[in-house]
Amino acid sequence: MRFFSDNAAKVHPKVMEAIAAADRVDTAYDGDALSRQLDGAFSELFGTEVRAFWVTTGTAANGRALAALCPPYRGILCHKDAHIEVDEAGAPGFFTGGAKLILVDGPGAKVTPDAVNQACDAIRNDVHQVQPAALSVTNATEYGLVYRAAEVAALGALAKQRGLALHMDGARFANALATTGESPADVTWRAGVDALSFGFVKNGGLNAEALILFRTELADEIAVRRKRAGHLASKGRMLAAQILALLEDGLWLENAQAANAAAQALAKAAPGRLVYPVEANELFLKVSPDEAAALTAQGFDFYDWGPGEIRLVTSWDQRGEDVERLSAALAAL
Amino acid sequence: MRFFSDNAAKVHPKVMEAIAAADRVDTAYDGDALSRQLDGAFSELFGTEVRAFWVTTGTAANGRALAALCPPYRGILCHKDAHIEVDEAGAPGFFTGGAKLILVDGPGAKVTPDAVNQACDAIRNDVHQVQPAALSVTNATEYGLVYRAAEVAALGALAKQRGLALHMDGARFANALATTGESPADVTWRAGVDALSFGFVKNGGLNAEALILFRTELADEIAVRRKRAGHLASKGRMLAAQILALLEDGLWLENAQAANAAAQALAKAAPGRLVYPVEANELFLKVSPDEAAALTAQGFDFYDWGPGEIRLVTSWDQRGEDVERLSAALAAL
Amino acid sequence: MRFFSDNAAKVHPKVMEAIAAADRVDTAYDGDALSRQLDGAFSELFGTEVRAFWVTTGTAANGRALAALCPPYRGILCHKDAHIEVDEAGAPGFFTGGAKLILVDGPGAKVTPDAVNQACDAIRNDVHQVQPAALSVTNATEYGLVYRAAEVAALGALAKQRGLALHMDGARFANALATTGESPADVTWRAGVDALSFGFVKNGGLNAEALILFRTELADEIAVRRKRAGHLASKGRMLAAQILALLEDGLWLENAQAANAAAQALAKAAPGRLVYPVEANELFLKVSPDEAAALTAQGFDFYDWGPGEIRLVTSWDQRGEDVERLSAALAAL
Amino acid sequence: MRFFSDNAAKVHPKVMEAIAAADRVDTAYDGDALSRQLDGAFSELFGTEVRAFWVTTGTAANGRALAALCPPYRGILCHKDAHIEVDEAGAPGFFTGGAKLILVDGPGAKVTPDAVNQACDAIRNDVHQVQPAALSVTNATEYGLVYRAAEVAALGALAKQRGLALHMDGARFANALATTGESPADVTWRAGVDALSFGFVKNGGLNAEALILFRTELADEIAVRRKRAGHLASKGRMLAAQILALLEDGLWLENAQAANAAAQALAKAAPGRLVYPVEANELFLKVSPDEAAALTAQGFDFYDWGPGEIRLVTSWDQRGEDVERLSAALAAL
Repeated sequence: MRFFSDNAAKVHPKVMEAIAAADRVDTAYDGDALSRQLDGAFSELFGTEVRAFWVTTGTAANGRALAALCPPYRGILCHKDAHIEVDEAGAPGFFTGGAKLILVDGPGAKVTPDAVNQACDAIRNDVHQVQPAALSVTNATEYGLVYRAAEVAALGALAKQRGLALHMDGARFANALATTGESPADVTWRAGVDALSFGFVKNGGLNAEALILFRTELADEIAVRRKRAGHLASKGRMLAAQILALLEDGLWLENAQAANAAAQALAKAAPGRLVYPVEANELFLKVSPDEAAALTAQGFDFYDWGPGEIRLVTSWDQRGEDVERLSAALAAL
Repeated sequence: MRFFSDNAAKVHPKVMEAIAAADRVDTAYDGDALSRQLDGAFSELFGTEVRAFWVTTGTAANGRALAALCPPYRGILCHKDAHIEVDEAGAPGFFTGGAKLILVDGPGAKVTPDAVNQACDAIRNDVHQVQPAALSVTNATEYGLVYRAAEVAALGALAKQRGLALHMDGARFANALATTGESPADVTWRAGVDALSFGFVKNGGLNAEALILFRTELADEIAVRRKRAGHLASKGRMLAAQILALLEDGLWLENAQAANAAAQALAKAAPGRLVYPVEANELFLKVSPDEAAALTAQGFDFYDWGPGEIRLVTSWDQRGEDVERLSAALAAL
Repeated sequence: MRFFSDNAAKVHPKVMEAIAAADRVDTAYDGDALSRQLDGAFSELFGTEVRAFWVTTGTAANGRALAALCPPYRGILCHKDAHIEVDEAGAPGFFTGGAKLILVDGPGAKVTPDAVNQACDAIRNDVHQVQPAALSVTNATEYGLVYRAAEVAALGALAKQRGLALHMDGARFANALATTGESPADVTWRAGVDALSFGFVKNGGLNAEALILFRTELADEIAVRRKRAGHLASKGRMLAAQILALLEDGLWLENAQAANAAAQALAKAAPGRLVYPVEANELFLKVSPDEAAALTAQGFDFYDWGPGEIRLVTSWDQRGEDVERLSAALAAL
Repeated sequence: MRFFSDNAAKVHPKVMEAIAAADRVDTAYDGDALSRQLDGAFSELFGTEVRAFWVTTGTAANGRALAALCPPYRGILCHKDAHIEVDEAGAPGFFTGGAKLILVDGPGAKVTPDAVNQACDAIRNDVHQVQPAALSVTNATEYGLVYRAAEVAALGALAKQRGLALHMDGARFANALATTGESPADVTWRAGVDALSFGFVKNGGLNAEALILFRTELADEIAVRRKRAGHLASKGRMLAAQILALLEDGLWLENAQAANAAAQALAKAAPGRLVYPVEANELFLKVSPDEAAALTAQGFDFYDWGPGEIRLVTSWDQRGEDVERLSAALAAL
């Protein structure tokens, strides 16, 4: 029973159908009818004019967004546990041409205005020290916490005041919105977000993520950077089709709600073990090595998160019976 | 009737089936059972131990191979019409960190030992001029010509003598082999090729290409570079599945043979118009603007290749009746 | 008798005196009184507000200027014989993060509007081909030819129309102006030049060159890039002092006139052998290997410029008697 | 009275004489007789065969050394207060092409084997996390502490075991040796150091630093990287002359001893205020804002080091009377 990653979840049947159907559209790269629908579809979702690009990975979306928002000789503020710092093999350095990640701390991988102010104030304003140009936050965070629109707006206002661009890594953006019920607009451009990496792969997609630009004037540069980095798929219709299928009738939100519900069910089974509140589809639990071994022996797959801790991730396709079994097992520990 | 690009061809049904089936394998990134079969499958195909990686674009395969074969401060010899020079948005510069493409000339985008020698001899051996570290050739070339094993071996021997690594851009590698009937081994590692970008997307795939390393010691670096450049798909099984489906029972070769046969049929219809001999699945024809307009009016889609010239590309799924119609139309011009 | 490079010329005594005197100014980096005089001194020379930076090499000046004028994903038009293409070890690729040099041809390493138009028109305006962002010309050129203000203005107008920034590599800018007698303003900003690498080392300096920005808004970025590339000397006063000494009372122009006069004297001795008109301080002569050997045997040092050709470079400190001897020797060949 | 930076110290008269004398050597770049003496002079100093390069800044020496020791896709361990992390404008990212600085902590900016082990053990060995390739230490450290040969040897052994290259930033290497009296060999190559940035500018030079390679096989790459980064001065003899003058008769060590002695005199005047033991030529003192203002009012120039702390740096040319006055002033606070 799989609880170790939503990357391992299935592709939603409607996505598979859309891919099969896309094959009838026969233009190369991103000139096809489906790819050309993305701008409109996301503009509608966000209630403002945006430019939208398919990409094949979240790292690619993050890297290119950051490269457009931060020149090589400046820095990007982010949490010390941010995915871009910890788990992307130095991709920001590669895409930006050597920009520096400037780290802030805070519980649950969440960035606060205070932490940003402290980090900025510690930097002398001269040519010897790297000056920040952008702030990147992850929503939901790497520890499954969620930013409310008001929290993002506070960061957005601060970013504006400090002259920083604002990027949101939304690998689990759907899960964040499924929890808060806030609108996509409120938690992004209305709050000052310039670019959003909008995840679909963990949420029923096959291999298409989206990069959304609220600063539409960056689109031409991003388009070139996509090609230059080897991310302009020649059958782009196959990527656009996945995204459009997930956007249709709010399937993306429905999938995220299912994953979140599974996480809540598990959270209720082990309230005393939670390291962080469960706000999206990830749970970090205090579990001794012996207890972890017992869970493994019962057929549960999860991620060992250092001594005395495990990570569980629920997916859109999580089977109810598996959740019940794991809930029971956790309660019985 | 589509003759403008094999990128616009359909995905082969067996590839679609393989993707659907891959969904039952549920491990993330490249740890899954399918991804782990690639090394073995390609080692068998090439008759030697290789390391094989899925990637989503040919540009990504080329860029990463070149980055592993050439340090930032040296150069890569290639034809002035090479795809890496002309049509990849400067990707080699991005992936290598600024290495220089050193251009050679020659008919049909084909690189000869003489041209390589001439280019190398023109470079002073000092720190002021960029010294070459690699040679990259495209097979089939950008003008549809094919290297025979002996030709590659001559280049390979020269590369070895000059201290150059040898890369082959095989976006249409299958079409090249379908023509010569030579073995994959003879035209690559036995001829001195260090790394091969092996194309599958134009030949029935969805969005998986392969990067094959004959110098297996480069594999660890390439694996890191894949992640760092945002090319490590989280559902890698979906890419591996495509490649394995095309390798099975020689489907890749069969597809290429079909595309090449269509090209030959067209070539026979307009022998006097050929700019280059037709050796793979591309035709470059001398066609006046009026004639081109007439073809377009009859419903044929193709690429305008500058004044008085057009490019036709045939695909694995080219319909016989379309080929016949175009043949007749060409003959009737 | 040295005629092989003005890089090998002496440091002017006034420069040495200025360095010695600068030692009494004791602030680090570029905060000292001398460094702070550069903006003013060059603004006066050019008759407009400029920002001026000392650097230690022409390659550093060129590289940083180009990095500020061209993003990593675009290209820089230049002559195929330009120093930045041929003799800077790929520095533009390093400084820009992989921008492409797009080469044009033309006699004497001179760039013409026609050549620029032809190169631009050959580039498809899409994401697959690298789009130019800047044009770089060398004045005096690598073959000792000089751009008149009107010629630069024609290029500047074209650059503006095409959306290209205009950079001038003026390693021998002084020699160019010494010939034309035109004003520094007319041949630069009034003609559309955005940034100028203004050479001093070949013209009596020790190791200080200047980078002049006519687009002053680039100054902050250039200042950071100077530090980041390891070019912010900690005793910057020693570099500023050299430049100020050469600017004082037009010493830079006087030195260049001396070098040019020596070149003219030699040109008159061998008019039939000139490959290019002599317009600055370089001469390219048709000389057979035997004749070259004869000159060498008489104690003349020069650069072998391929079969049947030699290069002579005269310097500000060229001794009259050496020029006379070489003139005689050339005439006697 | 200047105590704010040894970068502001004078150029030693013997260095000025050497520069004047170097003008008689007239070959360009690094082909001159003086530049060619560097390998030999440093090989003798270190008692082993080394390759030595002049550079114009410490940042350039560090950046190029790190680029040769660490590929773009890996990381460099260093102290969180290291100059390369804090005060070089992101130069390591620029020179390496995006390698990551992996920070360790510890008092006085000193790196310990424990800290290195802890940092390495925290990195999962997979493609998602950046793997370290090098360790860089500063000697004397940014807080004026000195590594003994045995301490470096412990780090060197650990580096070897972990597969890390070892770089030493020796901007104040002379001051470190002046304190310990240990041999240049013992604290570098015998202890496992692969490359050393050997500072001369702060110690009586004008603008020449040295980069010393104990792994001589890196020399060719470093030579190309020097040119490519715009650091190959065309009158290299002027840089070589400075270094040779400081090496002659141990002038470099003598200068450092003078600077250190001044620091010791000051340390004795205010023992209770020292934040760190004084081991080289830097002092960090607890001084209230009012006290600092009083010192400034008396004509002492120093660096404000955050609230309640100041930094004093002594130089080779520090006047004894100034030291006495500041000692008295400190004692009188």
